[in-house]
Amino acid sequence: MFKIAVDAMGGDNAPEAIVQGIEIARDSLPNVEFLLYGQTDKVLPLIQDDTRISVMQADDVIAMADEPVKSVRSRKQSSLVLAANAVKSGQADALFSAGNTGALLAAGIFLVGRIKGISRPALMTVLPAMAGDHDSFVMMDVGANAENRATHLYEYGILGSFYAKEILGYSTPRVGLLNNGGEEDKGDAVHKEAHQLLKSGSAAGFINFIGNVESREILQGPADVVVADGFSGNATLKAIEGTALSLMKMIKQTIMNAGVIGKLGGAMLKPALKQVAGRLDPEQYGGAVVLGVKAPVVKTHGASGPEAVAGTMRQINTMLETQLIEKVETFVSAHKDDLAARETEE
Amino acid sequence: MFKIAVDAMGGDNAPEAIVQGIEIARDSLPNVEFLLYGQTDKVLPLIQDDTRISVMQADDVIAMADEPVKSVRSRKQSSLVLAANAVKSGQADALFSAGNTGALLAAGIFLVGRIKGISRPALMTVLPAMAGDHDSFVMMDVGANAENRATHLYEYGILGSFYAKEILGYSTPRVGLLNNGGEEDKGDAVHKEAHQLLKSGSAAGFINFIGNVESREILQGPADVVVADGFSGNATLKAIEGTALSLMKMIKQTIMNAGVIGKLGGAMLKPALKQVAGRLDPEQYGGAVVLGVKAPVVKTHGASGPEAVAGTMRQINTMLETQLIEKVETFVSAHKDDLAARETEE
Repeated sequence: MFKIAVDAMGGDNAPEAIVQGIEIARDSLPNVEFLLYGQTDKVLPLIQDDTRISVMQADDVIAMADEPVKSVRSRKQSSLVLAANAVKSGQADALFSAGNTGALLAAGIFLVGRIKGISRPALMTVLPAMAGDHDSFVMMDVGANAENRATHLYEYGILGSFYAKEILGYSTPRVGLLNNGGEEDKGDAVHKEAHQLLKSGSAAGFINFIGNVESREILQGPADVVVADGFSGNATLKAIEGTALSLMKMIKQTIMNAGVIGKLGGAMLKPALKQVAGRLDPEQYGGAVVLGVKAPVVKTHGASGPEAVAGTMRQINTMLETQLIEKVETFVSAHKDDLAARETEE
Repeated sequence: MFKIAVDAMGGDNAPEAIVQGIEIARDSLPNVEFLLYGQTDKVLPLIQDDTRISVMQADDVIAMADEPVKSVRSRKQSSLVLAANAVKSGQADALFSAGNTGALLAAGIFLVGRIKGISRPALMTVLPAMAGDHDSFVMMDVGANAENRATHLYEYGILGSFYAKEILGYSTPRVGLLNNGGEEDKGDAVHKEAHQLLKSGSAAGFINFIGNVESREILQGPADVVVADGFSGNATLKAIEGTALSLMKMIKQTIMNAGVIGKLGGAMLKPALKQVAGRLDPEQYGGAVVLGVKAPVVKTHGASGPEAVAGTMRQINTMLETQLIEKVETFVSAHKDDLAARETEE
């Protein structure tokens, strides 16, 4: 039986959407138990059927706007910190929250803890690929770090490949480095060095590095794992989301102003347009994962409804069933020497 | 009379689209003379009416894939280098090319030359703002530099403000720093320091700094000047272009697969959708400008047709008429002391 520790109070629709989502997930995941941390007087009345669901009192809640690291360090009675400590102590196998992303990240790194040999955990997300071999790809770091060294990016190539292989089922995931041009001498010093590290990792058979990719093309699916530094990865992800949102808004406005024929056309196309918008909706393409820590630590969008919460629970279940973390740990510990060599290269 | 030196051979549709575009522009710009550099045997036969158009022989052409800096340094008989040298020697007032962006940038920096007091020229582009006070905004650096220091970003705030004021006509352009969060302590060391420099520049009345902006929101027009380091600015611009392209492609596919009703709706909406796509088409939103050099140096997209070329000529003409460069030079030379102080701060 797997146990998922849940921050029941995080997110715009918490605790209602969290509890509803967990009941949906519980019905389809017979091997999972849910440990909910939150204000019992608010959470308990929401539960319809408490099979494999238990609720633990948390007096405090870390809000969306709270300073992440400070909050995680000082607010021991918050729902997030209590849930993270349940993973730390071994009572739970994975951590979930729809709340403050920075705080979940800090909880993952400081409480759940880094995998030995991984220097900088990162935030990973799954995005849709419009063309290419597969219908989605993973991208990391999308914002855990404001600054990265080349070795971090090399680690992301390895971590992302494990995720793409184990969770998405791609046999030899193609790893691309997000850079400002295709040639291997492109980019700043960090990206040039990262390119060489990824290339050597590919030569050693650890990953399947296909070279640089540019943010213009990634949605067309040239790579299954897009490796990025946290700063430009974050800028790229947010630019994708913002452009999709702005464009759909523009289309709506244009339809409204298009006269009778345009409006009629718009009405006919509505279901199709909704489908397109859905593919680039952060709520639909799954939870962001803190990769590089000792357990699955996953968040879903703050605005998530019950279905998104349930989907994220299934994602966590797959990470547990496939033993993703254990496989990463085994790999990293087996290649300690390569990692050591890599560190001296800097 | 203004003289624009034109690389007649750069771009996918050169020299045909260049010559046609210049004839269109010439008819609406009575105070501009065009000096075309290219293979005379190819260019001359294309000219319908040679009023204010002269053609100079260039034996060589720098191709799209050529290494920029090396090409500009060694290929003295190329159309781009000859055109740039015409600006350097004072025969022409501005430089235009639709060819290799890196080579134009190198020609701008090494041949036309940096404005005294500006340490790192940048590539600037104009993007549409879907909402907000104005219908477009400028963003820089979108890729001239792979790495920037905080002082460069401060300079971009100043340069971008001059462009937004003089060319777009915004009285007090709002300057935003592209960063990974709204708070002033967000980002890596460079962005934290840049935030403080921009803030002090705002306090001194040089610019109107409104704080950090994120790539998710910039298309909604929160800032008139988006200041970015060249690496993440490039990633953001390309992500915007790529997402717009992917989304429009998806909508087309969805319409094709949507059955009779969907197809009918799509047909009715076609003009409206085309209009939306156009707003995010690099060809439509104007040429990219090398800002920080001693003359207008402007490029248009490689795939540009005659109308885009003519539009860019009008943009250059406005830069000359408003004396944009002279105004920047006067400002920078008047504030030498602030610039010196700023350099020591590092």
